[in-house]
Amino acid sequence: MAAANDVKLIGMWASPYTLRPRIALNIKSVGYEFLEETLGQKSELLLKSNPVHKKMPVLVHRGRPLSESLVIVQYIDEVWSSGRAILPEDAYERATARFWAAYIDDRWFPSLTGIAKAQGEEAKKAALAQVHDGLGLLEGAFEEISKGKPFFGGDRIGYLDLALGCFLGSIKVSEALNNVKVLDEEKTPGLAKWAERFRADEAAKDVVPDTERLVEFVKSMFAKK
Amino acid sequence: MAAANDVKLIGMWASPYTLRPRIALNIKSVGYEFLEETLGQKSELLLKSNPVHKKMPVLVHRGRPLSESLVIVQYIDEVWSSGRAILPEDAYERATARFWAAYIDDRWFPSLTGIAKAQGEEAKKAALAQVHDGLGLLEGAFEEISKGKPFFGGDRIGYLDLALGCFLGSIKVSEALNNVKVLDEEKTPGLAKWAERFRADEAAKDVVPDTERLVEFVKSMFAKK
Repeated sequence: MAAANDVKLIGMWASPYTLRPRIALNIKSVGYEFLEETLGQKSELLLKSNPVHKKMPVLVHRGRPLSESLVIVQYIDEVWSSGRAILPEDAYERATARFWAAYIDDRWFPSLTGIAKAQGEEAKKAALAQVHDGLGLLEGAFEEISKGKPFFGGDRIGYLDLALGCFLGSIKVSEALNNVKVLDEEKTPGLAKWAERFRADEAAKDVVPDTERLVEFVKSMFAKK
Repeated sequence: MAAANDVKLIGMWASPYTLRPRIALNIKSVGYEFLEETLGQKSELLLKSNPVHKKMPVLVHRGRPLSESLVIVQYIDEVWSSGRAILPEDAYERATARFWAAYIDDRWFPSLTGIAKAQGEEAKKAALAQVHDGLGLLEGAFEEISKGKPFFGGDRIGYLDLALGCFLGSIKVSEALNNVKVLDEEKTPGLAKWAERFRADEAAKDVVPDTERLVEFVKSMFAKK
């Protein structure tokens, strides 16, 4: 199938953003060649394919490159439209999913990386509180959007599941490195259970990074700096 | 038409982001009630409709609120699909338009506001150079995407035209307040001509703010601070 479709994905196993198109391609049962980047180096193909940002992931479909993980996921959903839909069918639900995905990337994830950057105990506490506030909003969104079903996307993983789920590894890393509890079963029980389901999902389980390996990898990154 | 569709838009004449849904609604010939916010105040309806960001624009369609200007524009395109399309028909072209729209919001516009923030002549020069670099990239994208046609969207204003065009007023303000040339006919002749066409376009001309009024307005904002 990979040859017929000619799908290549430039990315890396530990990159949360790479996870999004990988799961999307799995959902659509599209085979692809995974071109793994080496940390600290940027391949010629990556630089040529994404000259604006020089960042992974890049999807190369029939020789044409495409960047930005959420743009790629929408493209995958539209091109392989005969597979099950990744974005909701309803226009308002689709817009709501896009709204929250933008919130996650623009506001929530930067707050998560803010924990490690915070200097001193007070600042760290404040940063963690901000992350929890964001997760509180997302818990509310989950209740409203999932309507009691297992995922944001309903019975199966959808767009918003990918958007947030790709950062579950980053949450584990943040917890291990900063000695804090980010995804709290008491504060956000809905999301905590959703996270378990996400990791076990058929389309995700083989590409979601192993937590221990990821934590070790990030530690070694910091050690090199 | 407004009553039948029940479309309200919370925004403000001077807000670049508000301009996007206004032009999109014009393209689709959808009437709407324009609920103007007052600067420095946030209406009850705005706070209730966008509790996450508390920002305009908000589209309220049949009582349901929706935020984030590009999300709203895509929603308008999908809901009033019988009107002419705002996003390209082709999936790859659509993805490319989404990529550049994200570039404009995440990278280029922050660089434009960076000119006023820069301290000292050297820093101002560097900030301006960054803006010109970005416009250079966008000039290249325009040549590639428009293929000799007047707009990014081809013969008519489309998604990427809205995304960049809404900032033409901000460019004029930046030029007036910082005494610099941002949109340079020699550096980016294609975009300079495109900007004239954009301002004169049927869907845009009645909602694009008058430059002088906008400059005076922004000056008065700074004076209040």
